[in-house]
Amino acid sequence: MARIVKKFGGTSVADMDRIRNVARRVKAAVDEGHEVAVVVSAMAGTTDTLVGYTRDASPMHDAREYDTVVAAGEQITSGLLALVLQDMGVPARSWLGWQVPIRTDGVHGAARIEHIDTAEIENRFKQGQVAVVAGFQGLGPDNRITTLGRGGSDTSAVALAAALKADRCDIYTDVDGVYTTDPRIVPRAQKIHRITYEEMLEMASLGAKVLQTRSVEMAMKHRVRVQVRSSFEDTPGTLVVDEDEIVEQQVVSGIAYSKNEAKITLVRVQDKPGTAGFIFTPLADANINVDMIVQDVSEDGKMTDLTFTVPADDLERAVAVIEKHRDDFPFERIIADRDVVKVSVIGVGMRSHAGVAATMFRALAEKGINIKVISTSEIKISVLIDAAYTELAVRALHTAYGLDA
Amino acid sequence: MARIVKKFGGTSVADMDRIRNVARRVKAAVDEGHEVAVVVSAMAGTTDTLVGYTRDASPMHDAREYDTVVAAGEQITSGLLALVLQDMGVPARSWLGWQVPIRTDGVHGAARIEHIDTAEIENRFKQGQVAVVAGFQGLGPDNRITTLGRGGSDTSAVALAAALKADRCDIYTDVDGVYTTDPRIVPRAQKIHRITYEEMLEMASLGAKVLQTRSVEMAMKHRVRVQVRSSFEDTPGTLVVDEDEIVEQQVVSGIAYSKNEAKITLVRVQDKPGTAGFIFTPLADANINVDMIVQDVSEDGKMTDLTFTVPADDLERAVAVIEKHRDDFPFERIIADRDVVKVSVIGVGMRSHAGVAATMFRALAEKGINIKVISTSEIKISVLIDAAYTELAVRALHTAYGLDA
Repeated sequence: MARIVKKFGGTSVADMDRIRNVARRVKAAVDEGHEVAVVVSAMAGTTDTLVGYTRDASPMHDAREYDTVVAAGEQITSGLLALVLQDMGVPARSWLGWQVPIRTDGVHGAARIEHIDTAEIENRFKQGQVAVVAGFQGLGPDNRITTLGRGGSDTSAVALAAALKADRCDIYTDVDGVYTTDPRIVPRAQKIHRITYEEMLEMASLGAKVLQTRSVEMAMKHRVRVQVRSSFEDTPGTLVVDEDEIVEQQVVSGIAYSKNEAKITLVRVQDKPGTAGFIFTPLADANINVDMIVQDVSEDGKMTDLTFTVPADDLERAVAVIEKHRDDFPFERIIADRDVVKVSVIGVGMRSHAGVAATMFRALAEKGINIKVISTSEIKISVLIDAAYTELAVRALHTAYGLDA
Repeated sequence: MARIVKKFGGTSVADMDRIRNVARRVKAAVDEGHEVAVVVSAMAGTTDTLVGYTRDASPMHDAREYDTVVAAGEQITSGLLALVLQDMGVPARSWLGWQVPIRTDGVHGAARIEHIDTAEIENRFKQGQVAVVAGFQGLGPDNRITTLGRGGSDTSAVALAAALKADRCDIYTDVDGVYTTDPRIVPRAQKIHRITYEEMLEMASLGAKVLQTRSVEMAMKHRVRVQVRSSFEDTPGTLVVDEDEIVEQQVVSGIAYSKNEAKITLVRVQDKPGTAGFIFTPLADANINVDMIVQDVSEDGKMTDLTFTVPADDLERAVAVIEKHRDDFPFERIIADRDVVKVSVIGVGMRSHAGVAATMFRALAEKGINIKVISTSEIKISVLIDAAYTELAVRALHTAYGLDA
């Protein structure tokens, strides 16, 4: 007997037939003797409709009213799934955020969960009742409904699993797990059976859009074992776990890439202490996230070129911010380049293995791919290259690290 | 400065343009210096969609989950109206049933309001804030959402007006008031400017579907002045008030009719004490409402015919119940007639005027209309006639009581 939290996203509960499919999966777990809490999103499309209404109602909307309107979507699904489960003979009841309650801070529209009172849900477990919890929502300090921001149901599920000390949190989605890279680019990509939180975080933030970054952070913090699996196929998915649960650690677990990158080069800025601060402070103030940064060694000790990346969506805004502050840090000219991609190799194993970077550079060089910027962390190496080489680079690296099936 | 509750039904908030129209009406009242609470229904069609989902989910549905799902409709509208009001510069916030809270009993799907805590709403009035309250919903003793049954938003509005000691409760609907009879039958029907609670109750339950019967009962009990008016035209409507507020009382205020009637005659039942009880007890147990009852004078003192009416929808069920119990009260045969209509003249003035019934019988006789059953109360006289004569009878009576414009 295990205690399991299962989360189903919007496509998994898009209509009554799919809700019945979800109920069958929940029933199977109940029949195996498990205690089950289910977290549901709104039916696919509902949230968009409701968000559209709020925009129409008021462009500068009050986030408290936005939350009131949008949270109705998960409310509907939770009631419906409870009804379908009952109809299948499985005792179940819906729990809205304010009923559990799932207490959050007061940041409406992007609230953070602070505490979940699970006493009553655990009581009901003893009576064999399934808890169907509306995802994405909580109760703010003002006694009003809060929402956790887009994709927040993943976070609801992991937080609930942590509070319930659940044995596992299953996240059902439209893919059947996390792959060593994008299978559309590399058909021989393999499903990863176990991955560490740290690797998953890198995979998530680098564009493998399977799990919300915040939910992975929360899982890591509370050591919640998360399983990513398919809503539609009954195959084992990918288990996201602590490093020590992984017996045979690969050096490199996966190859990720992100197209939402843009490169900015400031040509001939003054090479003196504090320049970087002058440049990056106004960007931070404008809420623009600077990622990779490279400063050339200056030839004369006075002038240098500074290159960095920002999200492609923020490129125009970033250039505008820099132009506005150019008096604070004179430079000759600015080069903006949207035609780049960031490719990363990820693996906790590289901490204890030398030569991982060398393998990467050699593999790319063999294909004639030029590296523009490099950045590294303990468990990943990222390079910025021409976008045209994305597929070529990903395939070459996948082979170079022995990941092909 | 007055304190006013305004209630808008589903067609009045059917889309964003109509919600903006509602907001303009609310703003006008605020600009006049009034304290305003607004009660809203779900957008037209939403409740039907949600009810359809629950039926699909489980034919024998758990009313607690039904309430959770269906209440989402009013939740959405209340948030949207608050947003639109804010956008027009009117301070406003939404209040869900559990937030006010509007405490009800635990009869999910058909709950009764027990107490409304208005302290916080009244605090906000002092700051000039409009309260937008989700209609139709409350909080049950089990900390779950309850709904008041179909049309319950009228009841929400009147109950809120009573709790707030409001000067008036405006019910906005798609007609502009209560008429002396159905204007589709009598084009010369007149709008009634003031009507008593008692008359309105008779009008409502007899088929003039303007106000929910329960809401009128509640208004009468708490002496809430209710105004029925149009959402779309800015004309004065019909004020439902205490009898002493009506200076010049008509003898007859209106002519109502109801087509949802069916007549049952039991031919040759035993004429002895207790027979009626034997017959009507099983019908009451089956939740079938018996209305008009006539027992012929028996010729031989042993056998008599018994005629009564039931709602047309319940006719088949009623006949089945009687057949099942026929051993308890032997009769010769049963005649069921669906082809009847009940026409009523209503007016508190008839208490102090003789000859009202005589006028009715004469007017119908002049048109050759046969009366099958008669029943009377202090303020109404009802007759059952052939359905084919409905329009003729209503028109004749409207003229006979001097109601034509």
